[in-house]
Amino acid sequence: MERFEVNILGCGSALPTTKHFLSSQVVNLRDKLYMIDCGEGSQLQFRALKLKFQRLNSIFISHLHGDHCFGLPGLISTLGMLGRTADLHIYAQADAEKIFKPFLDYFCKELTYKVFFHSFNPAKSELIYEDRSLKVSTIPLKHRVPSAGFLFEEKPKSPHIIREMIDFYQVPTSRINTIKAGADFIAPEGQTIPNAIFTRPAEPSHKYAYCSDTAYYEKIIPLIEGVDLLYHEATFSHEDVARAKETYHSSAKQAAQIAQAAKVKKLIIGHFSARIPDENILLHEAREIFSNTILGKEGMALNV
Amino acid sequence: MERFEVNILGCGSALPTTKHFLSSQVVNLRDKLYMIDCGEGSQLQFRALKLKFQRLNSIFISHLHGDHCFGLPGLISTLGMLGRTADLHIYAQADAEKIFKPFLDYFCKELTYKVFFHSFNPAKSELIYEDRSLKVSTIPLKHRVPSAGFLFEEKPKSPHIIREMIDFYQVPTSRINTIKAGADFIAPEGQTIPNAIFTRPAEPSHKYAYCSDTAYYEKIIPLIEGVDLLYHEATFSHEDVARAKETYHSSAKQAAQIAQAAKVKKLIIGHFSARIPDENILLHEAREIFSNTILGKEGMALNV
Repeated sequence: MERFEVNILGCGSALPTTKHFLSSQVVNLRDKLYMIDCGEGSQLQFRALKLKFQRLNSIFISHLHGDHCFGLPGLISTLGMLGRTADLHIYAQADAEKIFKPFLDYFCKELTYKVFFHSFNPAKSELIYEDRSLKVSTIPLKHRVPSAGFLFEEKPKSPHIIREMIDFYQVPTSRINTIKAGADFIAPEGQTIPNAIFTRPAEPSHKYAYCSDTAYYEKIIPLIEGVDLLYHEATFSHEDVARAKETYHSSAKQAAQIAQAAKVKKLIIGHFSARIPDENILLHEAREIFSNTILGKEGMALNV
Repeated sequence: MERFEVNILGCGSALPTTKHFLSSQVVNLRDKLYMIDCGEGSQLQFRALKLKFQRLNSIFISHLHGDHCFGLPGLISTLGMLGRTADLHIYAQADAEKIFKPFLDYFCKELTYKVFFHSFNPAKSELIYEDRSLKVSTIPLKHRVPSAGFLFEEKPKSPHIIREMIDFYQVPTSRINTIKAGADFIAPEGQTIPNAIFTRPAEPSHKYAYCSDTAYYEKIIPLIEGVDLLYHEATFSHEDVARAKETYHSSAKQAAQIAQAAKVKKLIIGHFSARIPDENILLHEAREIFSNTILGKEGMALNV
């Protein structure tokens, strides 16, 4: 199976603690790395987790609160010092460029590569990134400032070719791509050999959704329906649901309710408040609603 | 003895590694904390070292390279989230305010306290901070951008009062402060009792000098003469002295030469390049010139 993995660099909330780093994840799809959020210290965690800086493709920033983006200048400088030449694309809401550009212009004058900011409108779901194997769309969230989650969708994969049948029917190499794409094969004698003879179904494509920071927000449910893995913030326990509402965060119970309603396969919760004495409280609370829940933890690498 | 301690939060150079955090120190003088430099992750180290955020008094920034100041926005937000009300004073060269202010205005709108930037001219040595027990002056350094070290000088302390003699001569309480300040005592019978009868000499005042980043620069020698503790950068070993010169850094040997020429009591070296495979090479190199040298290390707390 091809690699599609989520690495947790940090899953604490605004106040860093000795237990948690600030928000950041790295999605690894076939050894291309996509960063989601970049709180202070993300580059330290990136290195500590032995991820490869040169494989970093793009960065997606959910919203412009410091705990989700203060690590950008340091990471960008480091990539420069490591001699990066490939363009770096950062997807964030429009203010990001306005705020970070002067900072980078001052501190990173000798950058060996270019940084491009791409803005998206966090109020609606849109496709913001696409390459050969991946699509990334935004998931509008409900927070104190404009905030969007991200849906990472693997593109449909090619079916597997059954080598023995190709040999048996002496299919020329030049025809294999059209068979992969679904065509039948016309034998030299004129006979039609159906595509299904030559192929086994493609591996299923997987989906990962990242939703942080957000209040309980049912509008995300249709956007994340059936994803293989959902990261949903669970800043507080449901005992503090009033505080969660007031600060536009979610309780663990609410994260689980979203996971259940969206029929996701697995839920991982994070963005834990520094006030939570024991995160198992959150885990138990979520599992009462949605049993396939796990606690986020720095250093975790999860298959999607 | 009253506490005068240097805590090393980070002593790596520009590229963070799994071994070192970026430049930052906290000087603890009688439980008031003064931060020197604030690389990314400094607030994480501040917490990990169990320093008390509410005791943080002022911040001194040597120069505006990211590895010495990218931790400022995160630290400033955190102090706000912790409900700080005391003003925070940051001493740096003039550009700091221009660069950080818009950033803070955007991200730290709801700060519960005020941040003041004070600029100094890194080209000359000047007194930039003074309180009841401390003076801080700049030490002009030689780097690619304007850079200054800092000399922390305890102010002269009061002599110790010999309680028994005060009692014997029935000195009224109201006179004790003048005796501490050096006055003799005139007894009710008109007899002059010399000050020395009542006092033992004050504890010596101590000095700490921080010099990073800098090329080998003899002009700092008179400014740091005889300090109790000198932190001097030693980014490279002397084998790489050409590279040190080119990048306006020092070798461990050069740091030791400065320490020796300035007759300091103890040298601590830091700002280690990520290229150094084993820092003991630097230690041995420095000790050949100046034996009382130690290697900086995160978490170290040194008496001045």
